[in-house]
Amino acid sequence: MAELRKDPVSDRWVIISTERGKRPTDFGSVSVADEAGESKSCPFCEGNEAKTPYEILAWRKPGTLSNSAGWEVRVIPNKFPALQIEGEVNRQGSGVFDMMSGIGAHEVIIESPRHNVNLPDMEDEQIDRVLWAYKQRILDLEKDKRFRYILVFKNYGKAAGASLSHPHSQLIATPITPRYVKMELTKSREYFLEKERCIFCDIIRQELGEFTRVVYEQEFFVALTPYASRFPFEIWILPRRHEFGFQIMPDERRMLLARCIKEVLKRLKKTLNDPPYNFVLHTAPNPVTRPGKPHYWGTIQYDYHWHIEIIPRLTSIAGFEWGSGLYINPTAPEEAAKYLREIEI
Amino acid sequence: MAELRKDPVSDRWVIISTERGKRPTDFGSVSVADEAGESKSCPFCEGNEAKTPYEILAWRKPGTLSNSAGWEVRVIPNKFPALQIEGEVNRQGSGVFDMMSGIGAHEVIIESPRHNVNLPDMEDEQIDRVLWAYKQRILDLEKDKRFRYILVFKNYGKAAGASLSHPHSQLIATPITPRYVKMELTKSREYFLEKERCIFCDIIRQELGEFTRVVYEQEFFVALTPYASRFPFEIWILPRRHEFGFQIMPDERRMLLARCIKEVLKRLKKTLNDPPYNFVLHTAPNPVTRPGKPHYWGTIQYDYHWHIEIIPRLTSIAGFEWGSGLYINPTAPEEAAKYLREIEI
Repeated sequence: MAELRKDPVSDRWVIISTERGKRPTDFGSVSVADEAGESKSCPFCEGNEAKTPYEILAWRKPGTLSNSAGWEVRVIPNKFPALQIEGEVNRQGSGVFDMMSGIGAHEVIIESPRHNVNLPDMEDEQIDRVLWAYKQRILDLEKDKRFRYILVFKNYGKAAGASLSHPHSQLIATPITPRYVKMELTKSREYFLEKERCIFCDIIRQELGEFTRVVYEQEFFVALTPYASRFPFEIWILPRRHEFGFQIMPDERRMLLARCIKEVLKRLKKTLNDPPYNFVLHTAPNPVTRPGKPHYWGTIQYDYHWHIEIIPRLTSIAGFEWGSGLYINPTAPEEAAKYLREIEI
Repeated sequence: MAELRKDPVSDRWVIISTERGKRPTDFGSVSVADEAGESKSCPFCEGNEAKTPYEILAWRKPGTLSNSAGWEVRVIPNKFPALQIEGEVNRQGSGVFDMMSGIGAHEVIIESPRHNVNLPDMEDEQIDRVLWAYKQRILDLEKDKRFRYILVFKNYGKAAGASLSHPHSQLIATPITPRYVKMELTKSREYFLEKERCIFCDIIRQELGEFTRVVYEQEFFVALTPYASRFPFEIWILPRRHEFGFQIMPDERRMLLARCIKEVLKRLKKTLNDPPYNFVLHTAPNPVTRPGKPHYWGTIQYDYHWHIEIIPRLTSIAGFEWGSGLYINPTAPEEAAKYLREIEI
């Protein structure tokens, strides 16, 4: 029989519809590999640096110049930003409505100079450099007092919203905290105040004990399909020990995370024939600053537990979900985890 | 410049990205008319009643028999239900997780015996019969103490999740209240407790005053593009006077609603070349019952204000939105309303 399950962090109920029980081969999704296209005209390819805005950050070979060849990872402003970097955040009311000016940063992290090598096929070192770039950009942007949150995400494949096939992630710095992260922050705080334990730590402990939804584990990280997965083959990667922010993770652990991401994405690719997916980093919000106070004066949300959420884009049936917020997931997370765990890579 | 706007009911921030300013012709969406397909094998067509489960309700010509020809609107159980009608709602905990059995109703409202006539092209009387069926089914199902909410919705076009092209809506009765409705209920209650006014009534008053986001108005109903629209050409239809539930609306007003729905969908169809859309009825939840108490004992949420939300499915760019809950809308609602208001139909 179908089950209704509640995600303990977001308090979101989901219908796990096992009757419809969809297996990996039941999703007729396009393999992203077929979308690769040409690299000659690609603005993200090495040698085409003049086609992009000036770089903000790059991992470069010694002696190479900015905005020229010789980089491994390169961060540039998005040419068509959703938010604009210059200006003040004017908060205004208008009757019942609230608004603020669309101030923020919108950047692109080019993950490789090569056009056709995606995360699961990169060297661990290369993924580590991508994570290094995430960290540097978060640490830099969170100093900007206008911003509340730095959201790092990746759209892989056209169906996931990628307009260019060259491997890249994006980040958006916003003057507000995105809704789902905020719900998690609120719940983490409430749970901690009540129990003096982290809700994510409790979930991880239970998941490792039951081991029905674990996809992959190593000393510092665990990947699992969440109990109340909204989407088939949804995966979360979490640090096993409590840590509120990705950006404060010690550098020496980054390589282990790189390995975990690679392992998980390799499994996902093999199991579902290179599906499109979205990848979102959920980390603690920027420390709140106050005029005249040092940067780290405000509330740091120590009770949060950062993680990465991966959502394969397999179903377009999200019909009334958009209007109601009630999701129907045709693949039980236990099934998904089993497929992902047992596939040979 | 782009703007961040907050929806006062859901407290959801949205980025209205006017730089990207998309006009109706910029959306390369498929016209649903091209999907119609064959009617011969369609289980929803008149004459094919034997191909469906037994009917629950029908608007029939006098003297015709159940499950035979002679109906105008017909309600049947969904052949592939997301939730199952028989059984008890077992609520259980398992460590940090909560679940309940997947009990509920999942029904299909066939809106017409004809295969190719959709809502905007129906007679007013036919739309009125569809709304009559919604009402009858809600009133019947809300007596079932296992259910908290009856969600009526419509997926129009494949991109919106419709698997059959014959005009139909659906309803799902659930043992929980869907998330977005719940958020609205909570906010309506808080707002009312603070101000002794309905938040939706305040919005309607302001919208009719400003008249920049109004699509259509008549004596009892108004259609508008919400201030913090998540999606391009999102439209809400609301009763102008306070009313907590669709199901308690006096019958004589239903024809006016039918006319309003027709008018709005006609405008949407013409402006965007017959786009796919989702349509969700947000009404007050079922009255809470307690053992030994009469049915209407519990809390009826008088401070809610029912409405219909229409979401055209124009963009598949909802990439990181799924992971963050932060929406980027490339069409300002004022622009959308202007197009919808000024189109000749």
